[in-house]
Amino acid sequence: MKNYNPYVSGVFTDTDTSISVKEKYTGVEFAKAGLANEKMLKNAITNAVASEKEMENLSSYERYEILKFIADRLYSERDFFAEIIAKEAGKPLKYALIEVERASQTFMIAAEETKRIHSEILSLDWYSSLKKEAVVKLFPVGTVAGITPFNFPLNLVAHKVAPAIAAGCPIILKPASATPLSCLELAKIIEASPLPKSAFSVLPMNHTVSKPLIEDDRIKKISFTGSQEIGWEMKKRCGKKRITLELGGNAAAIITDSTDITEAVAKCVTGAFAYAGQVCIHTQRIYADKKIYDDFLNKFLEKTSGLKAGNPLQRDTDISVLIDEPNAIRVESWINEAVSRGAKILSGGKREGSYVEPTVLNNTNPEMKVWKDEIFGPVVIIEAYDKFFDALDMVNNSVYGLQASVFTNKIDEMNTAFREIKAGGIMINESPTFRIDHMPYGGIKESGYGREGIKYAIHEMSEIKVLVKPV
Amino acid sequence: MKNYNPYVSGVFTDTDTSISVKEKYTGVEFAKAGLANEKMLKNAITNAVASEKEMENLSSYERYEILKFIADRLYSERDFFAEIIAKEAGKPLKYALIEVERASQTFMIAAEETKRIHSEILSLDWYSSLKKEAVVKLFPVGTVAGITPFNFPLNLVAHKVAPAIAAGCPIILKPASATPLSCLELAKIIEASPLPKSAFSVLPMNHTVSKPLIEDDRIKKISFTGSQEIGWEMKKRCGKKRITLELGGNAAAIITDSTDITEAVAKCVTGAFAYAGQVCIHTQRIYADKKIYDDFLNKFLEKTSGLKAGNPLQRDTDISVLIDEPNAIRVESWINEAVSRGAKILSGGKREGSYVEPTVLNNTNPEMKVWKDEIFGPVVIIEAYDKFFDALDMVNNSVYGLQASVFTNKIDEMNTAFREIKAGGIMINESPTFRIDHMPYGGIKESGYGREGIKYAIHEMSEIKVLVKPV
Amino acid sequence: MKNYNPYVSGVFTDTDTSISVKEKYTGVEFAKAGLANEKMLKNAITNAVASEKEMENLSSYERYEILKFIADRLYSERDFFAEIIAKEAGKPLKYALIEVERASQTFMIAAEETKRIHSEILSLDWYSSLKKEAVVKLFPVGTVAGITPFNFPLNLVAHKVAPAIAAGCPIILKPASATPLSCLELAKIIEASPLPKSAFSVLPMNHTVSKPLIEDDRIKKISFTGSQEIGWEMKKRCGKKRITLELGGNAAAIITDSTDITEAVAKCVTGAFAYAGQVCIHTQRIYADKKIYDDFLNKFLEKTSGLKAGNPLQRDTDISVLIDEPNAIRVESWINEAVSRGAKILSGGKREGSYVEPTVLNNTNPEMKVWKDEIFGPVVIIEAYDKFFDALDMVNNSVYGLQASVFTNKIDEMNTAFREIKAGGIMINESPTFRIDHMPYGGIKESGYGREGIKYAIHEMSEIKVLVKPV
Amino acid sequence: MKNYNPYVSGVFTDTDTSISVKEKYTGVEFAKAGLANEKMLKNAITNAVASEKEMENLSSYERYEILKFIADRLYSERDFFAEIIAKEAGKPLKYALIEVERASQTFMIAAEETKRIHSEILSLDWYSSLKKEAVVKLFPVGTVAGITPFNFPLNLVAHKVAPAIAAGCPIILKPASATPLSCLELAKIIEASPLPKSAFSVLPMNHTVSKPLIEDDRIKKISFTGSQEIGWEMKKRCGKKRITLELGGNAAAIITDSTDITEAVAKCVTGAFAYAGQVCIHTQRIYADKKIYDDFLNKFLEKTSGLKAGNPLQRDTDISVLIDEPNAIRVESWINEAVSRGAKILSGGKREGSYVEPTVLNNTNPEMKVWKDEIFGPVVIIEAYDKFFDALDMVNNSVYGLQASVFTNKIDEMNTAFREIKAGGIMINESPTFRIDHMPYGGIKESGYGREGIKYAIHEMSEIKVLVKPV
Repeated sequence: MKNYNPYVSGVFTDTDTSISVKEKYTGVEFAKAGLANEKMLKNAITNAVASEKEMENLSSYERYEILKFIADRLYSERDFFAEIIAKEAGKPLKYALIEVERASQTFMIAAEETKRIHSEILSLDWYSSLKKEAVVKLFPVGTVAGITPFNFPLNLVAHKVAPAIAAGCPIILKPASATPLSCLELAKIIEASPLPKSAFSVLPMNHTVSKPLIEDDRIKKISFTGSQEIGWEMKKRCGKKRITLELGGNAAAIITDSTDITEAVAKCVTGAFAYAGQVCIHTQRIYADKKIYDDFLNKFLEKTSGLKAGNPLQRDTDISVLIDEPNAIRVESWINEAVSRGAKILSGGKREGSYVEPTVLNNTNPEMKVWKDEIFGPVVIIEAYDKFFDALDMVNNSVYGLQASVFTNKIDEMNTAFREIKAGGIMINESPTFRIDHMPYGGIKESGYGREGIKYAIHEMSEIKVLVKPV
Repeated sequence: MKNYNPYVSGVFTDTDTSISVKEKYTGVEFAKAGLANEKMLKNAITNAVASEKEMENLSSYERYEILKFIADRLYSERDFFAEIIAKEAGKPLKYALIEVERASQTFMIAAEETKRIHSEILSLDWYSSLKKEAVVKLFPVGTVAGITPFNFPLNLVAHKVAPAIAAGCPIILKPASATPLSCLELAKIIEASPLPKSAFSVLPMNHTVSKPLIEDDRIKKISFTGSQEIGWEMKKRCGKKRITLELGGNAAAIITDSTDITEAVAKCVTGAFAYAGQVCIHTQRIYADKKIYDDFLNKFLEKTSGLKAGNPLQRDTDISVLIDEPNAIRVESWINEAVSRGAKILSGGKREGSYVEPTVLNNTNPEMKVWKDEIFGPVVIIEAYDKFFDALDMVNNSVYGLQASVFTNKIDEMNTAFREIKAGGIMINESPTFRIDHMPYGGIKESGYGREGIKYAIHEMSEIKVLVKPV
Repeated sequence: MKNYNPYVSGVFTDTDTSISVKEKYTGVEFAKAGLANEKMLKNAITNAVASEKEMENLSSYERYEILKFIADRLYSERDFFAEIIAKEAGKPLKYALIEVERASQTFMIAAEETKRIHSEILSLDWYSSLKKEAVVKLFPVGTVAGITPFNFPLNLVAHKVAPAIAAGCPIILKPASATPLSCLELAKIIEASPLPKSAFSVLPMNHTVSKPLIEDDRIKKISFTGSQEIGWEMKKRCGKKRITLELGGNAAAIITDSTDITEAVAKCVTGAFAYAGQVCIHTQRIYADKKIYDDFLNKFLEKTSGLKAGNPLQRDTDISVLIDEPNAIRVESWINEAVSRGAKILSGGKREGSYVEPTVLNNTNPEMKVWKDEIFGPVVIIEAYDKFFDALDMVNNSVYGLQASVFTNKIDEMNTAFREIKAGGIMINESPTFRIDHMPYGGIKESGYGREGIKYAIHEMSEIKVLVKPV
Repeated sequence: MKNYNPYVSGVFTDTDTSISVKEKYTGVEFAKAGLANEKMLKNAITNAVASEKEMENLSSYERYEILKFIADRLYSERDFFAEIIAKEAGKPLKYALIEVERASQTFMIAAEETKRIHSEILSLDWYSSLKKEAVVKLFPVGTVAGITPFNFPLNLVAHKVAPAIAAGCPIILKPASATPLSCLELAKIIEASPLPKSAFSVLPMNHTVSKPLIEDDRIKKISFTGSQEIGWEMKKRCGKKRITLELGGNAAAIITDSTDITEAVAKCVTGAFAYAGQVCIHTQRIYADKKIYDDFLNKFLEKTSGLKAGNPLQRDTDISVLIDEPNAIRVESWINEAVSRGAKILSGGKREGSYVEPTVLNNTNPEMKVWKDEIFGPVVIIEAYDKFFDALDMVNNSVYGLQASVFTNKIDEMNTAFREIKAGGIMINESPTFRIDHMPYGGIKESGYGREGIKYAIHEMSEIKVLVKPV
């Protein structure tokens, strides 16, 4: 069994207390991760702040080399990392492997973007023949706190760390307690890179210890991915900091009659059940034109029935356990709540330990939790709609607004959806679970605040300064 | 009767020879325009070159004020200018009025763009920690020669003059001999503006006299709108100059079955017959899905039959004479050639003096002039197609590539058309005759070289310089 | 005496209570401004939210026309507005007139920028041959609350209202109680414009009544200019809103020995005493190279002695009263505090009613209020420095970071200043009081959060949405 | 001895005639390179044109992979390539190695840029509430002809090939006859890459055979680096093609008294003598402020005297032979011409075979070839100036305008130089021989037409198309 220590300003440091990390599928402990204490966090912050100038002064050449080093190492160790993720997160190996490859790309994009951080020149002679111009540049905002969830324990970490390095900011990362290992393994790679040691820490912590991450004035920016309750509360407590919140959703897809049903089914089944629905942009709600509803539904159920459940370490496993049994019980109870109020289970619906079957429901309504809340489990509702505008209303009938999708070949429907759907991202002919790591990503309404996606994250970790100079 | 003199470096200058300007509809001379001689051109060039530094040094504030002055004056004198255009070009008043308003907008866009001429900063520390950056800016290229055709005697002049002023370039304008007046009236406005006097000339000239415009090394840029024979020949003779060529076309529209036929008909009838088809992006070829071919054709013929022919000075006139009788005879002969090879006249087809009826043909093929050459007259062919890809082939079956359009509501057809149609502009649900003055405009294949559209024209009248400086 | 009413969703509405608006120089009441009550604010919010869709759907043409209408009217009524500002704010007429002209420009820039709101296309085929692209656009964030101070009662209002209209957001404006009139006069112009009536309100209010502006969840964005205590407190209370804070500063200038002393003196005297120093970027601290210190100081004192104090309504008045007597007493007490700790008064230093003489101090240190706090009065300290790096340290020795300036002709000093000075803007050869309305403007450290400057303000009033679509 | 064959559309193809490639230092033949005949060129063009659609359809992912493959292979074989260049071009190994590393970077930049080819969206509702927008994208222009000189036989080839692949254009490359080998070795790498075979050819040819490269209408773009006589002549003959001309210069540096003389000397000595001055931006003219002239000159002569001449294959060699003896004789004769008219040789001046000593002259004037023409040899003139404006005049006293530099720490001199010097690039505190591969590069006046520098070259190999679509 492996023991991991917190990574404090470049040093893996012994600690008194630790948490047990279990293989989520078997429930067997396979590693221990030391918990950071208050002093470690204090040191990490002090050191990070002390390294701000050094980080700011890194040339883009140096930032590129650091980021490329990490990207290359992640790629060459992708099987190793995929296995860790499969174990600690219970994520089927094929999805874990994709996550590692994406994490590698996330660092590589950041490497490329660090050379291209936007700056601009404005002429200032608009109202008189003033011989001056304004040079507008982005400077690193200062020390960043990154807080990440269990579901993408490597790539969501990458989405904090990579832009921070690219922007020239030190960063202190608090990984999810359930899945700290891939992040600590990443720290080993970064330790070997030329990144200034004080500029990066990985500190598994409990909430009490981690308070200064939110409240210490020396931290200038929080980048948080997690639940909306915690996120919005953080915004109130964060003082003068900037904050980015990547919160939850109950993403919906509209299936029109001008689309390729088979392709739509394939993408939506993946969107609904990949990683057992434990994805912020999990396809939770599907609204299909009544003209093709039966066809879509039948094909969807058929495709769902072909999913292979089992041990995430097996390469052909499609779906495995949830992160823990309490969550599985919660998901089960939401299904039951829906059924008790009239919903019909068309597939799945049963729980065994922390495993929940891929579940398809219809006859649901906006009052049910499976519609209005974020289920974070392998459950999808599929309802029929009459007019396209009805479908848009159903999508917007939610406090969330992360992503949504429309399967259509009609220009007017695409345009209307982009304009009318209240969500950060609208996908045409992809499930709402679609994400490419360099596209802007983030929600509106309850779903979040700010945007990630390397270039966008770099911007949110930067401060505009203007130089007015003679020409 | 009014007499106009060439405008040489800020001075309307007497000259020995002149051309008679006739009202195209009545054939009655209503003005004389003096022709510039070789000495005038020589002076205009020398003065323009001498003013280059002064032009370059104008602040964007000063350029804005000049351009806004012109825009405002054009707008307030729009009825006056519209009448001149109606007379000298035989353009129906309602289209002439639109042209003047557009010319005013063209100057106003240039006013706004002059404050926003693109510059950029590139970091140079990509391969080492070099403390340098590159500032990339556009500088005026030098003196510009503008050569314009008769069909938009004001707005095509504006598309040379406005970006030249915005870019900081002196410009010498040679208007079409048939329609020099609106340009000379524009010169009166510019004379009253704060533009440096040496920076603008309007010189009606015959070809022999105008040779130095093409060949004099001190002129750095030619912006030509006209026929492809003359244009491409100019490119060979222009030495070290830059050149922009806006040449002809035989623009085509595809009408699919997913569109609103009534709207498509309305737009295509206008595209086909506005200003008697004497427009570079005149809608000359229409390919309609055979499923809706009859419907489209019938509605098209009905709409065409409602067009009102007559004196361009009357506000309700839709179509009037061509620019001169030889052109009308040429158009008639092309119709006859098509008919003799099997084409069918569905409407119009007759000529009277310099007037040609709005003419609709079908049963045509790519060997006929009405398909393959630029007719520059009120003639349109309407053929049916089977598959969308056939229609694309028919559109591309041409040496030209200026603009084309597709009436469709299908995303895949829109994308395919953008990718596959060899033309500078592809319009969805507009006729190919669509142009907005700030969009990039210009052809590929035989249709042209370079782009206009203010920002794009400014770019082509500018020279990139880079400053490598310490950071 | 004139009576003004709150402007609620397009209607000037009677109200029970009002505040007296005095001519600041004479202390004589010359107008009454009605105070908005809770119901008015509630209505204004409800109506604003109801107009969000209409505002979002305004074409850029319509937004341009609205903004240009306002800009033109402000310009043509500039004398009228200048007089109001001179009276209600005690601002010398020549500065009041500049403010009105700038406000007009602020609206005009917004008119131009609304046509150019940034959008971009990202190819998504970076990791596979995926036939998709991302269209990234800005959408209006929703209803905006604007809260403005007394010192630029028109142009700082314009910096909230103009970008809101350009971005497509309704806006509710709470003007400073001391100076509500120019904003209410602006409302009259806007009432006459084609802006949807529900999209704009001007509500003079006391703090208790205005609470929902900060706390109501339907308001999506706060744009505040004012004191840092109130600003940072607002950030904590604003819930899920975005917020821009334009707070105070104690701007500093460095005078090196490679500059034109006479020009530097002229600019710094204006920066120090314009509008009696009641400017966020008032030149409060000057650090001059000891080699030219005496020369600079003597010329500065001489220039200062030439300032003409008096009634702001007289065209040659340079300096007049502060906004009220308590502020004058506070400024006086800060001067006294400095003197009691060793500072020397070189000029001015006396108070009479709400007037404070233009005051120059030296022998100050970072512990004194005149150095470390924002004096918001006609007081400047002038100290000598030895090395350029010492001067940078002195500038940075402050909790503020709004703007700073360096008078130098050396490239390395310019670059070092840009890199090392912790401020939102660094001016070369201008006083730190320099602002052009389209440049990014805002502070770091205690001085603020976010940026204004039309394009930048539009961005902060917008939400990114991405459309992933087939190509 | 190695035999090389022309690389025709992916196949190294036997040919009848060949040229002998000699080691330039020893004069010993060490390889033979087959000459392409007319049929080969014809095939290469036909195949290239046939592959245009395939090239256009390559995703950015595929283009990136191709370009990265080439970059990586060049880097790993850098010693091998450096040796070839040292032999065939007589370039000292240390410079040859830098060239290979730069060529690798050139391909890597192109890999990154291919994912970021600019596109934009313009709103079209500026004059009415038209619900349309314009999508502006770059499409590959078609088949490119690249023609390259001997002096950077690998990296100047890279500057044609890399952007062509990034832009999606097939390319036919004609290398210099003196140095075809590094380009043919590059072809081996490209052969192993996934680039479509028909999209690349390397054809050593004599001028008669290569005519169709210039004249065949199916080639859409010429990118030429070489002499101005040939370049400008090509522009006349190239028909409808686009053309980029990277021609010669006689780059000048200004040394002011505000600079670090030692650093300036080091950079200028390298600029003057690296690769024996056979560089387009060779530092040929130096103008030093008379106040520091003697100091600069002495240090320059001292530094020059330390240069090590010899075999380019030795790692410590600084300077070696010219490309051939006729060129050495020409250089010697230009020195003699200058001397005969009054110039003084301060260092060097002698020739032995094809070797010319590093030569420093003063007492020159603008009538001498060493001042006014491009010497392309290890010769530099160093003159004194009185006022900065005199120096600018001396720099501009030339028909060329490629690059120039100013060593200064003064902001006003930097700005003036950028504005006043007629050259494509102005360097501050670098020699005019400075080039970073991603910066815009190219000359004005006689020195060229268009710009290279990956992003800029991609732009010149692309055609703008606009899609007007509903929103």
